Amino acid sequence: MSDPVLAELIAGLRAGGPDLAADPATLRPDYEALFATMPVADDLAIEQVDLDGVSALRVATPGSDTGKAILYLHGGGYVVGSAQGYRGLAGEVSRAAGMPAMVLDYRLAPEHPFPAAVDDAVAAYRALVAGGTKPANIVLAGDSAGGGLALAALLKLRDEGDALPAAALLISPWADATCTASSLTSKAAEDPSLTKHGLDVCAHRYLGGSPASDPLASPAKADLSGLPPLLVQVGSIEILLDDALAIAASAAAAGTMVRLEVHPGLPHVFHAFHFMLPQAKAALDDAGAFLAGHAS
Amino acid sequence: MSDPVLAELIAGLRAGGPDLAADPATLRPDYEALFATMPVADDLAIEQVDLDGVSALRVATPGSDTGKAILYLHGGGYVVGSAQGYRGLAGEVSRAAGMPAMVLDYRLAPEHPFPAAVDDAVAAYRALVAGGTKPANIVLAGDSAGGGLALAALLKLRDEGDALPAAALLISPWADATCTASSLTSKAAEDPSLTKHGLDVCAHRYLGGSPASDPLASPAKADLSGLPPLLVQVGSIEILLDDALAIAASAAAAGTMVRLEVHPGLPHVFHAFHFMLPQAKAALDDAGAFLAGHAS
Repeated sequence: MSDPVLAELIAGLRAGGPDLAADPATLRPDYEALFATMPVADDLAIEQVDLDGVSALRVATPGSDTGKAILYLHGGGYVVGSAQGYRGLAGEVSRAAGMPAMVLDYRLAPEHPFPAAVDDAVAAYRALVAGGTKPANIVLAGDSAGGGLALAALLKLRDEGDALPAAALLISPWADATCTASSLTSKAAEDPSLTKHGLDVCAHRYLGGSPASDPLASPAKADLSGLPPLLVQVGSIEILLDDALAIAASAAAAGTMVRLEVHPGLPHVFHAFHFMLPQAKAALDDAGAFLAGHAS
Repeated sequence: MSDPVLAELIAGLRAGGPDLAADPATLRPDYEALFATMPVADDLAIEQVDLDGVSALRVATPGSDTGKAILYLHGGGYVVGSAQGYRGLAGEVSRAAGMPAMVLDYRLAPEHPFPAAVDDAVAAYRALVAGGTKPANIVLAGDSAGGGLALAALLKLRDEGDALPAAALLISPWADATCTASSLTSKAAEDPSLTKHGLDVCAHRYLGGSPASDPLASPAKADLSGLPPLLVQVGSIEILLDDALAIAASAAAAGTMVRLEVHPGLPHVFHAFHFMLPQAKAALDDAGAFLAGHAS
């Protein structure tokens, strides 16, 4: 590999990290400890907020347009992760888009199985609207499970007749809880971060007894008609590559505007490594321009 | 439809146009007559050039960087179309990218079946390089059959060890001569421009006796590893939608950088209507920034 920084990152990811299949009681602190090692920009203004009973961190960078908002849904297989852990990444999305990000602490599985997370995301969106932010000035964003969750929230809002947000950014989305995509095996040797087994366990915990075929659990292959513009950014060495492609295909078939970017050689949610990877910074800048261009 | 300009365009396309299944002897003049009705910007500098025996029109807009070049491959099912007919569209790609476009009069089928067009595109690229333009300063671009042809040319250049161009723009590409994609039927009612029958006839004329499975005839599902960054722009109401999706999937699987943009409600090669459609102008601007960003 001709990119030593990327090579070092991938080697580090491959060397180990939290195992999504582990017991949540040990997985969660391990996961938070890992995220606590990631640098967070020191110019972020962070405050705790409540969105109709769902707590969130409001993360803003200098000059953010306070009349707009990103509702940010973090990753972690629906089982781990927190607003605190993802404040740094959400802050960089905020910086790129020039809009504050509300990083939601939606309820996690297995204690709160599907559709608790979808309900929380929808409730938080409605609270933002009720608080005076116009739907046309709100965008959704999410990474990994949070990307699938953002798409599911859009479907529920559409189906229930809400005015929709202006756009959505889906970073390395996990949007197919059936865990049957061929990239789960074809990219297994390349992916340094995720395993099909880890996703299978998360899907089991998230679904509880619900069928994986529920469109709100597996929105990648759902009817995506009537949605706002979607930007999907994914790395080419991800086992979740096919989820990104499936979203693009479903959106295209339904006549929904979609832009899919496949970034070669990059791992799952590479944006999180913005502090070391120029490719991540460039992708964030692209995403920010997309979000800002639609939320106006 | 809430966009009266687009509605009028689609109604006009639906009302009729050249039938790709017609006899080339009548199809070609009809096609040229249609293109002769399209406005061409009056600031284009156009001159006839020769690229190793393949004639082309060099189309440049004021301020074009003469050290760079777009090799532009026009559409028309490999059977019709000309540099003269496509000089206006290529000129707008040139304007958006800030680089002159060489619009190639590659040989047409059925008189010159596959792989004559591929050979001509490759010869023209090599002539540009031999003439002193660096590969890193050359991009390929093409629409419809020309999009598939651009991809096929990249594959041949890769396989024969040439230094590759910096990027490629594929507009509504036709890149699967097997004509088996599901969008050929699922989008048939929506597409105002193309029919599966028209493509079947073109494929038959282009292939001569060659198998449609040849990667240079159907590059959409070929091994796309080792290629430069690809931008695929397609309208959502096209029967060729799946060709665009297949290219994105093949590039992603191979670790090649690809950006796919699905533009809702827009027809085949909507860029050609830049003089009336703001969406076309926006897509051209995006494409120009992509090409200019890589050819540097």
